[in-house]
Amino acid sequence: MVNDPRFLRAVHLEKTDCTPVWFMRQAGRYLEEYRRIRERHGLLEMFKNPEIAAEVTLQPLKAFPLDAAIIFADILLPLEAMGIELEFVEGEGPVIHNPVRTGGDVDALRVPDPEEHFGFLLTSIRWVRAELDGKVPLIGFGGGPFTLGSYMIEGGASRNYVLTKRLMYEQPASWNLLMDKLAVMLASYLLAQARSGAEVLQLFDSWAGCLSPADYREYVLPHTRKIFDALRQAGAPSIHFGTGTADLLPWMREAGGDVIGVDWRTNLDDAWNRIGTDVGIQGNLDPVTLMAPWPIVRQRAREVLDRAGGQPGHVFNLGHGILPATPVDNVRALAESRIGNLTSMNHG
Amino acid sequence: MVNDPRFLRAVHLEKTDCTPVWFMRQAGRYLEEYRRIRERHGLLEMFKNPEIAAEVTLQPLKAFPLDAAIIFADILLPLEAMGIELEFVEGEGPVIHNPVRTGGDVDALRVPDPEEHFGFLLTSIRWVRAELDGKVPLIGFGGGPFTLGSYMIEGGASRNYVLTKRLMYEQPASWNLLMDKLAVMLASYLLAQARSGAEVLQLFDSWAGCLSPADYREYVLPHTRKIFDALRQAGAPSIHFGTGTADLLPWMREAGGDVIGVDWRTNLDDAWNRIGTDVGIQGNLDPVTLMAPWPIVRQRAREVLDRAGGQPGHVFNLGHGILPATPVDNVRALAESRIGNLTSMNHG
Repeated sequence: MVNDPRFLRAVHLEKTDCTPVWFMRQAGRYLEEYRRIRERHGLLEMFKNPEIAAEVTLQPLKAFPLDAAIIFADILLPLEAMGIELEFVEGEGPVIHNPVRTGGDVDALRVPDPEEHFGFLLTSIRWVRAELDGKVPLIGFGGGPFTLGSYMIEGGASRNYVLTKRLMYEQPASWNLLMDKLAVMLASYLLAQARSGAEVLQLFDSWAGCLSPADYREYVLPHTRKIFDALRQAGAPSIHFGTGTADLLPWMREAGGDVIGVDWRTNLDDAWNRIGTDVGIQGNLDPVTLMAPWPIVRQRAREVLDRAGGQPGHVFNLGHGILPATPVDNVRALAESRIGNLTSMNHG
Repeated sequence: MVNDPRFLRAVHLEKTDCTPVWFMRQAGRYLEEYRRIRERHGLLEMFKNPEIAAEVTLQPLKAFPLDAAIIFADILLPLEAMGIELEFVEGEGPVIHNPVRTGGDVDALRVPDPEEHFGFLLTSIRWVRAELDGKVPLIGFGGGPFTLGSYMIEGGASRNYVLTKRLMYEQPASWNLLMDKLAVMLASYLLAQARSGAEVLQLFDSWAGCLSPADYREYVLPHTRKIFDALRQAGAPSIHFGTGTADLLPWMREAGGDVIGVDWRTNLDDAWNRIGTDVGIQGNLDPVTLMAPWPIVRQRAREVLDRAGGQPGHVFNLGHGILPATPVDNVRALAESRIGNLTSMNHG
């Protein structure tokens, strides 16, 4: 049983004793205990082994006073069951061996049943939830439809998203079918995580910020909205995240999410002005700033809190995931500095 | 003699018969006549040969009705005379063989005299200016200090700018010395181009958008301001460009520039609201949109003009450079559609 934890209170726009904090990719390579496991296992193997995934999920919670856990997984995981051949190549990132390039490729994509195909993830979630024993809420997540679509089409990471946008412009029917399949998959994938014990769901549409506001509205928003509508109808609280989204924020808010995740390029007061204070906000220290000498980290973190203005609904986080070379001591100091009544970073 | 061309009028916030247009990287690989020359010469060789550079500069002007020429060069060119070993590697982009990593590396950088070291560029500018014969203004340019510094430190393109930001945070004295040397170099480099015939100067701080507003203000703005102060004192009109700068725009405006260049991620009415209508604005069609079927290009280009609202001081452009696979016919149609009184894209 969760004892009214501050992370859930913030997601519901309620007052908290101090600002809750968690870090995207808090289970990751900057932790020595993670690297020790990673040495012996491939990434896909780690995601699919509930014992390993649960252990890795809990590592940062054991190391630091964080206000939320996030299940150890990858946004690309559900694509395999859609028919995508996925590999994580050392030092290169994800590679897709059969990229989606034609209407026929889109037609061939399957929409998997989550209970049947993602049992490993749902088991991990159940185990972590039991282990956490109500002390800290657990976040489940999925990729946003644009972001997943871009990986499927480009075959990996991209700089200019040329193939993705060309499919979008040149074959709008195939684009819409692709986005629709992804939206249907994501809604059921996220709701299955909720049923298994994930208390909040985050949608990472990390690369949607490469779109103009007009293109986002026309080609992405209607599909993303379907996902958040499904979550809301099921009563599952949600976070909607992207990077480089300064001028997409009002449209991301329209698509849905109880909390909107913002990267470091936008001050939180400006972000809140754009989306309205009737939704929460998550962010937004630059992940590279977390690698700076501690006095700079502390100063910039304070500025984030000042911009948020102590308003209910702020979840402190980075503007994107923790980078591998981040000093653990900085992560610890930041997690500890806002807890309790000891420091000036406290908004209690 | 330039007959009061609409590009210069727009830069000076004066009314124009229709919106002037030019394209970043308008001299480039999407043009067959460019590829024919490129096949036979290395990039550095092309930049340094005034005959080739002048010919390539003029190619798009011969092909389309554009309102400005921009000298064929690269923002990294002046780094060689500072002591940087630069190579353009086929398919990979620029590589710097002796990246700047320590205070000693920064100390060793020279600030070159432009007349002595960049004679090839100044000659190209004089030749192009003579050839243009006043019909269309010529733009000279340089890289912004953050962008050039990031290439010098990372040794090439970067995704997260970790080394750059770490030097900035960890060695602020060396960072400031680096930015100062770049600012002094850039001011003299741009002013030498102006003396040789470049009528407008654009500063491409293309990657400054990876910084938070606070970091931009603290670590970049004071240095960039020195460059624009020097240009203003010399009476040289200027354009200040970056990508991903939605919430840096007010600070870029404070740093200087008669026109602020904006990428496609921000609607021009929002951009003008942030910077004030007493400076001009340049942009901002997504370069990938220019690869779309023509009806989509036309619609999005019209939306750009609608957002600009026909207000004096708008220079139509892409939000970044033309991509190599762009269809020439789209570039031509876009350049032609806003000329004269023939089309609804005209704001005369």
